[in-house]
Amino acid sequence: MSGPFISLLTDFGALTAPAVCHGVMLGIAPDARILDLTHAVRKYAVRDGAILLASSVAFLPVGVHVAVVDPGVGTARRPIGLRAARGDLLIGPDNGLLLPAADRLGGVLEARLLSERSLFLAEVSSTFHARDIFSPVAAHLAAGTPFEAVGPRLDPAELTPMPLPGAVARRGGLDSAVLLIDSFGNCRLAGEKHDLEAVLGAFESGRRVAVTLPGRDGTTRRKELAWVATFGEVPPGEALLYEDADFAGLALAVNQGSAAERFGLTLDDPLRIEPA
Amino acid sequence: MSGPFISLLTDFGALTAPAVCHGVMLGIAPDARILDLTHAVRKYAVRDGAILLASSVAFLPVGVHVAVVDPGVGTARRPIGLRAARGDLLIGPDNGLLLPAADRLGGVLEARLLSERSLFLAEVSSTFHARDIFSPVAAHLAAGTPFEAVGPRLDPAELTPMPLPGAVARRGGLDSAVLLIDSFGNCRLAGEKHDLEAVLGAFESGRRVAVTLPGRDGTTRRKELAWVATFGEVPPGEALLYEDADFAGLALAVNQGSAAERFGLTLDDPLRIEPA
Amino acid sequence: MSGPFISLLTDFGALTAPAVCHGVMLGIAPDARILDLTHAVRKYAVRDGAILLASSVAFLPVGVHVAVVDPGVGTARRPIGLRAARGDLLIGPDNGLLLPAADRLGGVLEARLLSERSLFLAEVSSTFHARDIFSPVAAHLAAGTPFEAVGPRLDPAELTPMPLPGAVARRGGLDSAVLLIDSFGNCRLAGEKHDLEAVLGAFESGRRVAVTLPGRDGTTRRKELAWVATFGEVPPGEALLYEDADFAGLALAVNQGSAAERFGLTLDDPLRIEPA
Repeated sequence: MSGPFISLLTDFGALTAPAVCHGVMLGIAPDARILDLTHAVRKYAVRDGAILLASSVAFLPVGVHVAVVDPGVGTARRPIGLRAARGDLLIGPDNGLLLPAADRLGGVLEARLLSERSLFLAEVSSTFHARDIFSPVAAHLAAGTPFEAVGPRLDPAELTPMPLPGAVARRGGLDSAVLLIDSFGNCRLAGEKHDLEAVLGAFESGRRVAVTLPGRDGTTRRKELAWVATFGEVPPGEALLYEDADFAGLALAVNQGSAAERFGLTLDDPLRIEPA
Repeated sequence: MSGPFISLLTDFGALTAPAVCHGVMLGIAPDARILDLTHAVRKYAVRDGAILLASSVAFLPVGVHVAVVDPGVGTARRPIGLRAARGDLLIGPDNGLLLPAADRLGGVLEARLLSERSLFLAEVSSTFHARDIFSPVAAHLAAGTPFEAVGPRLDPAELTPMPLPGAVARRGGLDSAVLLIDSFGNCRLAGEKHDLEAVLGAFESGRRVAVTLPGRDGTTRRKELAWVATFGEVPPGEALLYEDADFAGLALAVNQGSAAERFGLTLDDPLRIEPA
Repeated sequence: MSGPFISLLTDFGALTAPAVCHGVMLGIAPDARILDLTHAVRKYAVRDGAILLASSVAFLPVGVHVAVVDPGVGTARRPIGLRAARGDLLIGPDNGLLLPAADRLGGVLEARLLSERSLFLAEVSSTFHARDIFSPVAAHLAAGTPFEAVGPRLDPAELTPMPLPGAVARRGGLDSAVLLIDSFGNCRLAGEKHDLEAVLGAFESGRRVAVTLPGRDGTTRRKELAWVATFGEVPPGEALLYEDADFAGLALAVNQGSAAERFGLTLDDPLRIEPA
């Protein structure tokens, strides 16, 4: 690469805010290679951002990863930097956003408060720390400023945690929940393939399973569908359970359709998967 | 350019999947210049992707063009590479997506199956071949791996075709159809300016034409409108027929409005254009 | 940076048109660093584009800035280039889009008509001047073509102006209006912090103010809310008045919500801010 690698994930949407961050970073690290990881995280959804960052970061080059989903911007929440075992630096607010990604990169070796104001823009606003603090600090680090220059060490155990719902094996089935809904309407569920194999036995593509979904007014619905390796194993319009490669876990989908719409699912809805 | 050129077109939308493909490619070809052609192709719409790729690719530098609109991912559909006469390589699924672009680049000189697993990621998922197969193969090619290394030759005549509806001159008019609807609501129609000139005579901007559109319940509607060179030749809110430069063909639009909404048009709707 | 800097702002949306402009520029200036400022300007909304460009450009490196929101494409409106005091060149249509940005960069030192056809693509369409005129001219300039080569000088006083509504102090309050609505539903208002301080006294975070908003049928509504430094100073779901760092002016928002939806605001709606 022509220079150091920086990635950027935010909930800023499609207007100019992400490009302004690029501009600030280029002013400090003109040779940096800056990749927009996504700016379409659901607004203020820190957990969505954490899941998206964690499921992507291992496929990116080692570098500095800036993530900003920050409903507390301008308040007492701390700006932080994390050094992960793979060698990456993660930069963003101390609201749990960075921790699952740090885990994917081997864990946090060192956490620091971003407090060295000479690494910020000269004027720091109350509402755009991505531009005024996170981007310039990231660019300085990419350009060679040593990590210890950003501010004092923090105890990693005192960082704001990001509890992610897990899957629980119970009475021959798996209790799961909707973790994330992607732009296709695919629902990423709590748990991974091995969790389901632990209760249903080894994966055989095409096996029928029963999924219990929340209905209206506290009722539930039971749908039988196929547990398969890929979309094309069921006809268009049919539901499937599969391991999503992008989000690295179990997912519920409709081939060429939207599972979220079909089943009226929203985030955190509980689901139970059992033998059919 | 600092390095080889790669373009990327998908229906992945605005989340992290396109950036993950960038990350994989940068790991293999660190100097590549990677351009997102678009990730907003309508989900699973192979023909839309084929038209968008074909209308754009001639304006891009010679390079490796990855296109992934792939409802059959993980099934028996083949991953392929095409070498086009201009010197470009096209990488994607064998579902017709790549062929119109190859035609625009002078035709297919050589087609190959992507089967050499040492050019894939070490682990290949069932649902994310863009990340696991297409991106790494494209990056290896951009970094200098010779095309013959990707796998055995295929007979171009046996590739999955992409039949695109054409325009048909009939009894003094042109039978066309809606090929694509863009984000402005402009409708790209089958046929080009010369097809219309063949039935209506040489283009004179401002000439009135009659367009027969599908109505409800199988009826049709007839609208008179101007055949012009550009939007500004009709008042805001008025319909026009013109040659769209972006999609390189006839198009129906509303100045500062949406023709698709105004006329209730959807893909493949038949249209007939006649003298007014 | 590996090469000269070009930014690109349009209302083209998420399909292939912006990437085609990249392709054209790379063919002329292979080492250029090209940044998408945004392509999500509201369709045909020249004023929105002008505000977005002006509020961003000072954070970008000195370079060539291409902006295309151009309902008059292909008509008599002139393609122009402006040289700003900071050293940047601004390229786009003469419809007022570029002027507020030029002001932010220190003002227009020199304006020129883009008329030298050898700097255009060989074939110029009637509907895609971003590709055929603006992008190639910008790339030639980035690659070293002197500004005087693009065409004859224009009198800056004769350029199409961009009148932006201002804030007016009147009888102890500030008359303002909705200038822009961002993707969060935050409403950028006419006026800046100092305008409000001039009528209400020095800013103290948390002070209550009364905002008079347009209601249905010509009526008005009066809402009391806090004038604060940042979102987190009010509870989620509560409205606030603040200085927006991104758009560099007063703004009305709802913490973790949409002020535009909450108050039914659209562009140019008048607002009055008074002591509570």
